Amino acid sequence: MSLVVVGSVAYDGVETPHGKIDRMLGGAATYISLAASYFTPVRIVAVVGDDFAQEDVDLLASRQIDLSGMERVPGGKTFFWAGVYSADMNDRTTLRTDLNVFADFNPKLPESYRTEPYLLLGNIQPELQKMVRAQMPGVKLTGGDTMNYWINDFRAQLLETLKEWNFLLINDSEARLLSGEYNLRRAAARIMEMGPHTLVIKRGEYGAILFRRGGHFIAPGYLLEDVFDPTGAGDCFAGGFIGYLAGRGVTPNDGDIDASDLRRAVIYGSVMGSFCCEKFGVDRFRSLTREEIEARYQEFQDCTAF
Amino acid sequence: MSLVVVGSVAYDGVETPHGKIDRMLGGAATYISLAASYFTPVRIVAVVGDDFAQEDVDLLASRQIDLSGMERVPGGKTFFWAGVYSADMNDRTTLRTDLNVFADFNPKLPESYRTEPYLLLGNIQPELQKMVRAQMPGVKLTGGDTMNYWINDFRAQLLETLKEWNFLLINDSEARLLSGEYNLRRAAARIMEMGPHTLVIKRGEYGAILFRRGGHFIAPGYLLEDVFDPTGAGDCFAGGFIGYLAGRGVTPNDGDIDASDLRRAVIYGSVMGSFCCEKFGVDRFRSLTREEIEARYQEFQDCTAF
Repeated sequence: MSLVVVGSVAYDGVETPHGKIDRMLGGAATYISLAASYFTPVRIVAVVGDDFAQEDVDLLASRQIDLSGMERVPGGKTFFWAGVYSADMNDRTTLRTDLNVFADFNPKLPESYRTEPYLLLGNIQPELQKMVRAQMPGVKLTGGDTMNYWINDFRAQLLETLKEWNFLLINDSEARLLSGEYNLRRAAARIMEMGPHTLVIKRGEYGAILFRRGGHFIAPGYLLEDVFDPTGAGDCFAGGFIGYLAGRGVTPNDGDIDASDLRRAVIYGSVMGSFCCEKFGVDRFRSLTREEIEARYQEFQDCTAF
Repeated sequence: MSLVVVGSVAYDGVETPHGKIDRMLGGAATYISLAASYFTPVRIVAVVGDDFAQEDVDLLASRQIDLSGMERVPGGKTFFWAGVYSADMNDRTTLRTDLNVFADFNPKLPESYRTEPYLLLGNIQPELQKMVRAQMPGVKLTGGDTMNYWINDFRAQLLETLKEWNFLLINDSEARLLSGEYNLRRAAARIMEMGPHTLVIKRGEYGAILFRRGGHFIAPGYLLEDVFDPTGAGDCFAGGFIGYLAGRGVTPNDGDIDASDLRRAVIYGSVMGSFCCEKFGVDRFRSLTREEIEARYQEFQDCTAF
């Protein structure tokens, strides 16, 4: 039972107070897949150009990620994004966005993907997310991400798409924008009327809140000694969250998932997001082990229990 | 065994998105004392003018707070502060500060206070904090608060004062300013070299972190449905924190306090801060009961355990 991940595979140029890298592997689907791969088999749906490097293929393959759904466009160039972070790394400015082959992304799932039970829709056009969902009629657990641009300018499409999701993972400002409510408890109540029975609000360094109709779970962020590059941390959170649920074989029954599994999934999401920040781009995943993940999960428990 | 609380007793004018009150009881020592009074007997040290209203005396007295150390200056006026909050209530602008009798505050402890074991020094001039500490030679547990102004302009005095404290309670920006370190783990390590063996960093709606030499405890903030007025929330946190420790009879032995007591003290601090925000000024304390406090503590546990 595998997890299907849809989204961008990209090259990023990133500058933080700790350094600058002109071009490195990035993209939401990349981060989600790498993080999830520690918990469950992953199958990726994406598009790249023929400039996509063999070493990057090799990294994904080394984590047993199925790349048969990663389309390679001959003569095309891979999506490129560049940005620079503020001194406290809580803000970033986009310097460049070249959509390249991603502009015509029209995700088609290989036959082998279509019967998988888990689907994570990275932040792409809501109609594309809906099209992918439609290709997996037997999917058991569907969730995804979105962003301000889709909430503002593609609202009707997004609301149609959300109806079919079991969970939504967004940050606090997106939750406020989507719901029209500033208070997060009220924002969550509104959003859960849109379809998803579970809402995870990511708060960056301050952790995350899991909302369900019956109540909420709130977790602080892991306190890092050094944050080198926060790029991809939110996607790694999503990958850890859905990856853990998929690895456990969790399926919602009439919208009901075991609450303790969901709570653990939030902590694994935080753990994966925290590792992501420790090195530039995906570098931390070149050496990260499942043992390190378990140790940090335990540390989380030790630092929060009372 | 009582807690001695030193700091401002004031009148505040406050405007939040939920309303505006021209003049109401406020001041750090007021909030600290009210919050702490649910856990331990409190004795206040402060100064007011003869405009200080009987109904405000009555409120403090109704919580069994000893007012014999509250000096009343004939012909003087009570400290007045006015401010307005931003729409998200995370920022506030001071509109007016009339120090009045507080400008000459020279705290002298009644004889009956001087043998008490617990001391909480609200945010006042560091030399005054030191003078108060010197009047309690047998004190067992001393802690307090400070602010950017003292850190920047009275640094040497503050460092002298801090040497004698067991714990310091400040917010994240103050911790960064005091330590010269942006990262909170590193900031805490620096600050714990200044004297206090325990540092509590308050993060407003995002909760708090307790640092000790052996490790840290991190708690998210309680998720309120409505925040009417955050004025005094940080002081109520301090009052709940020290009040709980005093009520438990905790005394540090060679700098060692039971870690689980400290963790519970942080949660009680958060609980008291959260109640404070539910109504304007001190209004929530007119009806708050110990049963409501225990229920919220339990809710905190339910919302954070995994």
